[in-house]
Amino acid sequence: LPDIYPKANYIDLTGGNLLFKGKVANPSSIGFHNRDLVLQIIEKKGQVSRAELAKLTHLSEPTISAIIEGFLQKDLVREMGPGASVGGRKPVIIEFNPGVGYVIGIDAGGTWTKIGISDFGGKFILKEKISSKELGLGEKAVFELAKRVNQVIEKCGMEKKKILGVGIAVPGIADQDKGMVSFSPVFQWHGFPLVKMFFSELDLPVFIENDLNASAIAEKQWGLAQEYQDFVFLGVSRGIGAGLILNSELYHGHFYAAGEVGYMILGTDCLKQKESPEDLALGRLESMVAEAGVVKRAKELGFTIKKEEKFRDNIMGFSAEDVVKAARDNNEIALQVLDEITDYLASAIINITLVVNPQAVVIGSSIEGAGEILAELLRNKTASSFLVKPLILPSSMGTDAGLIGAASLAAQNIKQTLIS
Amino acid sequence: LPDIYPKANYIDLTGGNLLFKGKVANPSSIGFHNRDLVLQIIEKKGQVSRAELAKLTHLSEPTISAIIEGFLQKDLVREMGPGASVGGRKPVIIEFNPGVGYVIGIDAGGTWTKIGISDFGGKFILKEKISSKELGLGEKAVFELAKRVNQVIEKCGMEKKKILGVGIAVPGIADQDKGMVSFSPVFQWHGFPLVKMFFSELDLPVFIENDLNASAIAEKQWGLAQEYQDFVFLGVSRGIGAGLILNSELYHGHFYAAGEVGYMILGTDCLKQKESPEDLALGRLESMVAEAGVVKRAKELGFTIKKEEKFRDNIMGFSAEDVVKAARDNNEIALQVLDEITDYLASAIINITLVVNPQAVVIGSSIEGAGEILAELLRNKTASSFLVKPLILPSSMGTDAGLIGAASLAAQNIKQTLIS
Repeated sequence: LPDIYPKANYIDLTGGNLLFKGKVANPSSIGFHNRDLVLQIIEKKGQVSRAELAKLTHLSEPTISAIIEGFLQKDLVREMGPGASVGGRKPVIIEFNPGVGYVIGIDAGGTWTKIGISDFGGKFILKEKISSKELGLGEKAVFELAKRVNQVIEKCGMEKKKILGVGIAVPGIADQDKGMVSFSPVFQWHGFPLVKMFFSELDLPVFIENDLNASAIAEKQWGLAQEYQDFVFLGVSRGIGAGLILNSELYHGHFYAAGEVGYMILGTDCLKQKESPEDLALGRLESMVAEAGVVKRAKELGFTIKKEEKFRDNIMGFSAEDVVKAARDNNEIALQVLDEITDYLASAIINITLVVNPQAVVIGSSIEGAGEILAELLRNKTASSFLVKPLILPSSMGTDAGLIGAASLAAQNIKQTLIS
Repeated sequence: LPDIYPKANYIDLTGGNLLFKGKVANPSSIGFHNRDLVLQIIEKKGQVSRAELAKLTHLSEPTISAIIEGFLQKDLVREMGPGASVGGRKPVIIEFNPGVGYVIGIDAGGTWTKIGISDFGGKFILKEKISSKELGLGEKAVFELAKRVNQVIEKCGMEKKKILGVGIAVPGIADQDKGMVSFSPVFQWHGFPLVKMFFSELDLPVFIENDLNASAIAEKQWGLAQEYQDFVFLGVSRGIGAGLILNSELYHGHFYAAGEVGYMILGTDCLKQKESPEDLALGRLESMVAEAGVVKRAKELGFTIKKEEKFRDNIMGFSAEDVVKAARDNNEIALQVLDEITDYLASAIINITLVVNPQAVVIGSSIEGAGEILAELLRNKTASSFLVKPLILPSSMGTDAGLIGAASLAAQNIKQTLIS
């Protein structure tokens, strides 16, 4: 082939295929970019010498040394004892310092709200779980949540100045640029300035993201999807939704509504049903497949449970957790219900895959063990239906993906500030 | 809000949100990037002075002058007479020179194959259309197509050295990096080295892309979607498929199979059907909605047509073109058929929108006028079904989107080489 075919003359670490995107390069933006890249490599590699960094990045050793000097001054990295020598003086090893600061992660879920304190490496020193109902709705939920956050900070006994920011995962459409939640039925946050409100309560930088986007961030940053360029995190809990990492970056969509697959249509009949605004609060796929659909179908099939075994009270006498737990114990009705709902979920996964052709679909749930059961059922059910087959995997973070993602969101954003 | 929130200190022209993507910045890559950006601005603006370019890019006037000097030497731009003065000497106006070279565009479609010669501004000096059946299958189709291309070049009387490359739009999965067509039932190109084969026939650089990806490129580069960051080109012809522009760039998916929505499932029944390899050649949505489905349904409803009005012979006695033409003439059966198929298409558009939340869905077809009729029906049918509503628009390129996209693909790639 002639050499007219453009070839990259720089290294590609994250799989992105464009050097810049519509921005002019100037000394300040270039410096920031290279610092960001070097810090990413240090985090990925775990331990690395200045010489290795120079080799990996094609930056000169003096440039690398200057960058590292800046990181050391800001406590972003630390020097370890000398590493293995490759002849000559043994090199000093650099590693990321996860204790450079701490962040609050909040997963404001449909059923449970979780609050945690994590270092910059994703290690949590405290996690708390409260019923979302207790928080109330609208502004009240923000005041209550802020109060709980302060209690958690107090409980862990950490100086407040060590906490550098807050990340919040929200069920619904969250616009980080405007700091607004556009649409979130669970807390009745519609056109709601969540970032501003939370900031005035806590006096800390606040970052928001859709809960399944946050879960996808968590798997990309610290979980099973670190090497995946294109994957989908599919959450099946009180609602159904997806977070999309495309070309190694979170993809938001034009109105921050990418991945709202709970509203997916699985038959043309759905088109004919006129939907009221209340119906819109529960998607078409969701109404059949999410927790309420599971409980309803189990009830129809005669599922019952002894009172003392119950997870949560529910108007039906049992909850979706109860059905999942019974399925794990091989209860036949429970297994039938999960088999039925995975028909719908399998169709949804096939359709999502046809649109964005991901390398993997990661299944998460706020119900313990549901991700594992669903992933296995879905893998079998979709096996013969793909043009090109994605991996179907349970989340590596159990029920905590949203919480971990919220912390990661805050940590990533604050790191960018520290190096800018 | 505290100033910990990162703010961009550079201009954003295409809406990308990252300065670099996982690449280190060095003088050579930075130079290439800035030349690329300046050329893009010149093309977008039409006419612009050096001073305006410096202002828009935040690059210095000497840097801009050096870049323009390089472009002038390569005939990429030309100087026009002085523009309007803003006080002082009137500035010299720069514009892109579309005649810097010519490219061959090929749209190898399910029914028709089109060949055209275009300048670097998307202006065609010749277009030809041949029945795809005449080309044959496999390697034979390549030899035949190359022969036709040479005839077209001869016919237009252009020196061959003015033609700098060939872009081919293919119905199926095309991997530009490997130069392979992975899957294309129409020409039976499966794991087929199309780029290498075409290059050895024509001795020109060859670029391949899925036909609907090419159509999306055409709308982004020269059509109605120049300002859209996120949109979907949905093609409804012999097959059904989509091209996705996300964050202003073509999105391919992990195995180059993004947008293969012809296989979309619109009911869980589809899961139960075991599919043979032949069935896979026609998608689940396609079998109902694409040309064969239209003809079948029209036949069921008693559609007939006078022989002298027929577009193409068909085992059914008429073709999908005939049905679309009759619908445009208000034939009741034809209108009913289109109404029925748009139920399925509407569901597909809703599902695609839920996954990637585009700003617009652009409807194209190889059937004259079909894009316009379908877009209007689909707009009405989906009106109340969206959480966030995309624009639904007919392609601005009629039946030529794939051909224009193929030319654009070649022109974009060769421009990159000219400035590198």
